[in-house]
Amino acid sequence: MSTEQAVGVIGLGAMGMGVARSLLRAGFTVTGCDVRNEALKEFAGHGGTPTTSPAEAGRNASFLVIVVVNAEQTENVLFGEDGAAATLAPGSVVLACATVPSEFAIATAERLARQDIEMIDAPISGGAVRAAAGELSVMASGPPATFDKAKAVLDAMAETVHRLGDTVGPGSAVKTINQLLAGVHIAAGAEALALAMRMGLDPKVVYDVICASAGSSWMFENRMPHVLAGDYTPFSAVNIFVKDLGIVLETGKQLTFPLPIAATAHQQYLAASGAGYGRQDDSAVIKVYRDLGGITLPEKSED
Amino acid sequence: MSTEQAVGVIGLGAMGMGVARSLLRAGFTVTGCDVRNEALKEFAGHGGTPTTSPAEAGRNASFLVIVVVNAEQTENVLFGEDGAAATLAPGSVVLACATVPSEFAIATAERLARQDIEMIDAPISGGAVRAAAGELSVMASGPPATFDKAKAVLDAMAETVHRLGDTVGPGSAVKTINQLLAGVHIAAGAEALALAMRMGLDPKVVYDVICASAGSSWMFENRMPHVLAGDYTPFSAVNIFVKDLGIVLETGKQLTFPLPIAATAHQQYLAASGAGYGRQDDSAVIKVYRDLGGITLPEKSED
Repeated sequence: MSTEQAVGVIGLGAMGMGVARSLLRAGFTVTGCDVRNEALKEFAGHGGTPTTSPAEAGRNASFLVIVVVNAEQTENVLFGEDGAAATLAPGSVVLACATVPSEFAIATAERLARQDIEMIDAPISGGAVRAAAGELSVMASGPPATFDKAKAVLDAMAETVHRLGDTVGPGSAVKTINQLLAGVHIAAGAEALALAMRMGLDPKVVYDVICASAGSSWMFENRMPHVLAGDYTPFSAVNIFVKDLGIVLETGKQLTFPLPIAATAHQQYLAASGAGYGRQDDSAVIKVYRDLGGITLPEKSED
Repeated sequence: MSTEQAVGVIGLGAMGMGVARSLLRAGFTVTGCDVRNEALKEFAGHGGTPTTSPAEAGRNASFLVIVVVNAEQTENVLFGEDGAAATLAPGSVVLACATVPSEFAIATAERLARQDIEMIDAPISGGAVRAAAGELSVMASGPPATFDKAKAVLDAMAETVHRLGDTVGPGSAVKTINQLLAGVHIAAGAEALALAMRMGLDPKVVYDVICASAGSSWMFENRMPHVLAGDYTPFSAVNIFVKDLGIVLETGKQLTFPLPIAATAHQQYLAASGAGYGRQDDSAVIKVYRDLGGITLPEKSED
């Protein structure tokens, strides 16, 4: 295997581990970077090279896939102490997968370009299971020549690559729009299901009827079963929407554009996080309605 | 044809006309009631008997299908001057299809029961096209014996009859939950698509990506094409959601249950109605964002 096929993956959480494993399966040499020893051990078990140093992940890599949580972490692993930008070679490609403001993505690409490092704005969605299967959806934008270069990496990671423009920025912008809707839909689903319970309806029956009706959403169908099962094991956490709707609202503020529905949904996630549910599944936003509205939620069966 | 198969339909709007035509096609003798001459002429052309009198629609009818806009109209056509409750025979069945508070449905059923008139709580959804095809979805509840009696009528009207309980009330309660979600999803879709335009994104591209992503909803997919086409011919009007989210919020108030997201969406429909868009398609709620946020919406092509 030639060194042209070396990939660094930074962030071995549920999504990053899935990406890294998909790349290993596709035949790439993969160095995976995380701060958690457990994740590094698991990754080594899959045949990857573990490191705690972003600079090590960037050294000799033709591609660096950054699967961290937010803009701050993206900036740190690239430009912080021991950052990967110091070791990445000219002509290498960064795939920036965190959900970040599009302005941050643009600024990061400009900073990397000064070292002749290329970048694809590549926020991902699909969840841990699809990440492990190499079936993510990528809202991507960047120069066509960079896409050509990174084709094998994207093919290994993703089932669908939405090509949203020839510059960095539109990928993150469209992801921002998606997160507005996803965040509102989960909170609205919680509000609706909570009201149904308060009205004395069977939430399972309501769930089935809504899924077959005009009131349905992808998130309602996907997340409300967690409420019905009383299982708030984080699929994606409440705090992710504290952050992502925060990006949405910051975007609106910069553009002086009112977003009252997103703002109200954001308040519900903030309330959930403030009440101590921030690390639970995002559907735990329904606990705000329980705490204020006096309903009893389904509990996890202990079998 | 025996008189047992006579049906009255009150309200020959887009939905009621579709229901009445489906019943004619199924072989029922149908008397259709409306105040608008044009609708009555159209209905007569389809082979129905037109009347402007609810009492006439109820006379000799085994079934009365009420497809009016709200609780007030439902009450008027049954119990107002020249109302149908005065002519309906004991043992006849009222199918109450308007979206109303479940408490109103319960009270109406009790009032009809004093005359031995039966009732099915039967709010409908699906839109005009599916109404005309006899493919509505009904969120229905009522006594099993009444369902048995009304089976042929429901079969003629609906593709799907959700049986939600053996008493009147749960049908309207589940419809309330559906309308909460439907109303929030249209307004959130408008908010998201408006922000996308403000960010300089192509709304058609965003629409396609969202429809394939976790941010999608039934209403986003169904209604946002009206925005993309610049065609606000009312499919269902802004004012319907002023009313239906009003029912949602009134329900929450009665139960002392906070519904901040529904309340915020309701404000957006109120704003749209206040700005003069109340009779336009519900997707015209996006014009609130245009008027405040300085975006240009797609315009209807004149070919």
